Amino acid sequence: MSKWYIDKGDLGDVVLSTRIRLARNIDEYPFPGHLDAKGKEKVSELVKNVLIGKENPFDLMAVKLEDLSSVQIVSLAEKHLISPEFTGPAQGRMLLISKDEGVSIMLCEEDHIRLQVMKPGLAPLEAYELADKIDTFLDSRLNYAFDERLGYLTQCPTNLGTAMRASVMLHLPALTRTGKLSQLSATVSKLGLTIRGAYGEGTGPRGDIYQLSNQITLGITEKAAIDNLRAITLQIVSQERQLAAELVKNPEFADKIYRAYGVLSSARLLSSDEFFELISLIRMGAANELIPIDIEKINELIVNMQPATINANRGETLDARQRDVLRAELVREAIRPQ
Amino acid sequence: MSKWYIDKGDLGDVVLSTRIRLARNIDEYPFPGHLDAKGKEKVSELVKNVLIGKENPFDLMAVKLEDLSSVQIVSLAEKHLISPEFTGPAQGRMLLISKDEGVSIMLCEEDHIRLQVMKPGLAPLEAYELADKIDTFLDSRLNYAFDERLGYLTQCPTNLGTAMRASVMLHLPALTRTGKLSQLSATVSKLGLTIRGAYGEGTGPRGDIYQLSNQITLGITEKAAIDNLRAITLQIVSQERQLAAELVKNPEFADKIYRAYGVLSSARLLSSDEFFELISLIRMGAANELIPIDIEKINELIVNMQPATINANRGETLDARQRDVLRAELVREAIRPQ
Repeated sequence: MSKWYIDKGDLGDVVLSTRIRLARNIDEYPFPGHLDAKGKEKVSELVKNVLIGKENPFDLMAVKLEDLSSVQIVSLAEKHLISPEFTGPAQGRMLLISKDEGVSIMLCEEDHIRLQVMKPGLAPLEAYELADKIDTFLDSRLNYAFDERLGYLTQCPTNLGTAMRASVMLHLPALTRTGKLSQLSATVSKLGLTIRGAYGEGTGPRGDIYQLSNQITLGITEKAAIDNLRAITLQIVSQERQLAAELVKNPEFADKIYRAYGVLSSARLLSSDEFFELISLIRMGAANELIPIDIEKINELIVNMQPATINANRGETLDARQRDVLRAELVREAIRPQ
Repeated sequence: MSKWYIDKGDLGDVVLSTRIRLARNIDEYPFPGHLDAKGKEKVSELVKNVLIGKENPFDLMAVKLEDLSSVQIVSLAEKHLISPEFTGPAQGRMLLISKDEGVSIMLCEEDHIRLQVMKPGLAPLEAYELADKIDTFLDSRLNYAFDERLGYLTQCPTNLGTAMRASVMLHLPALTRTGKLSQLSATVSKLGLTIRGAYGEGTGPRGDIYQLSNQITLGITEKAAIDNLRAITLQIVSQERQLAAELVKNPEFADKIYRAYGVLSSARLLSSDEFFELISLIRMGAANELIPIDIEKINELIVNMQPATINANRGETLDARQRDVLRAELVREAIRPQ
């Protein structure tokens, strides 16, 4: 089954993906931070048994984090299927995941339940609808910690209210290279959103990929938060497209894009950093019809060329040098003209 | 008719070409430095009429330097068909040249006659035989300035004796990149040879191409000078090949070669300096079976991508930026896999 992230969705030249994340806790249990391994395991098993019983309405698989190698766990984080935080102590933690990796539910991360739905391109409503369906199913079978005034109770007070984080992953090479990103960042923060590196707080951008997400969860409905994210995303897409179209008309810049293609189609050693630097240029070239490669193929490379994911896909633990050789080989094959 | 320099001769992976140059003067006339424009013209016409009369035994064409544009003249120098010195004041000077550009005779350069024969690869005897044939023909019809003790009399005393300069053009990327060239330079000078940049005294190497030539013309026969050049060239070829074979086994170095290929096959702007830097790596890659391009095609590019030669071939005077665009285009076309 092909993974959700290799499709190109709506506005896919700029919007790589949309994610809806809901945080939920069960009233009878303390937050995971106050549970020992046994307690976490109990909560994880409880939720798993609700979702995957005799029936499995959302077609999920359950994975105990303890059963995974550290390479597999880091690869899940690289693919945004789990949070960086979830790569920590594994005891009692569980992941429920769909075959296309579009639904991923972390059990006993910061909250008991962290439900994520991911879709290619800009699709916050579509993602929310599926998340809401799973949430409604759980709600009817579990006793959620909920307060009339504060909404869903969560470990971190910034999540109180809807406890929903809606975000899009954006490829913004033109805004980045024209130095307009800090200005954009200031603007969106006034509108209740935040833009940061693809791996969340404190991470820098890699391959000019950013995550734009809503910050406010209290005193706002899910629908309003999604509409807000959608509207601002549309504006950013329009800015990025316009700047990119101008940039690629500049012969020096076009030359940079073509050279990036030349290097990726020829190199025999390719570090992760260089790969992200060059693939960003190539993605921009593809989106603007300079380079004849499908955006889907590029998206797949962006996911699969990450260090731990290379190892996880390969089923062995290569060192950095061996990965650089393999990365160069896989990239050459992928972008070779058909 | 294809030009001599696009063939790959003996030991052509390292030896681009061999050149024999004879300097001759006519007894009745002062050296060109002491002739005015009219005097030079008289000497030029005299020699031309001997070589190209009713018959044209060596199938030469005569070109008055005054009739050429400065771009055409510089292009001739880039192709080593004339000396840099011959690009100076054109009045009275003439060039006799064969269709394949393998024979080129400068009239009224430093000496009345500067006869050059060029062959691809290592072929000093072959080149000398043709030069000697033309020289014998001229000798029987002109009164050469000759002294029993000093040999052929020339303007510059360093040419006295045989007045023959035998040289090979060598591509030495491995010796250059391993820092062994200065040592080699010291060694060959003890053996009566000199190694320098492709455009002679005072020029740096470009594309790791060097000219190795005999320095001694007095007290040595032509045959001995040629044997000496040949023997030392064979040793250098063997050293270069061995070092190159080792270098390309190094993954970092091989990666550099492949990347050079990637850039040349993709770039849209290509300066002359960058072209020579990269084509040198690619030539090394081709000679060592990393890159599937014929050495002949590379040799042709090395000649034709020079600034004035690009303009001369195009028949118009492009500025540096326009040349960089055209150079990138011509190189892409030439090295594209067939």
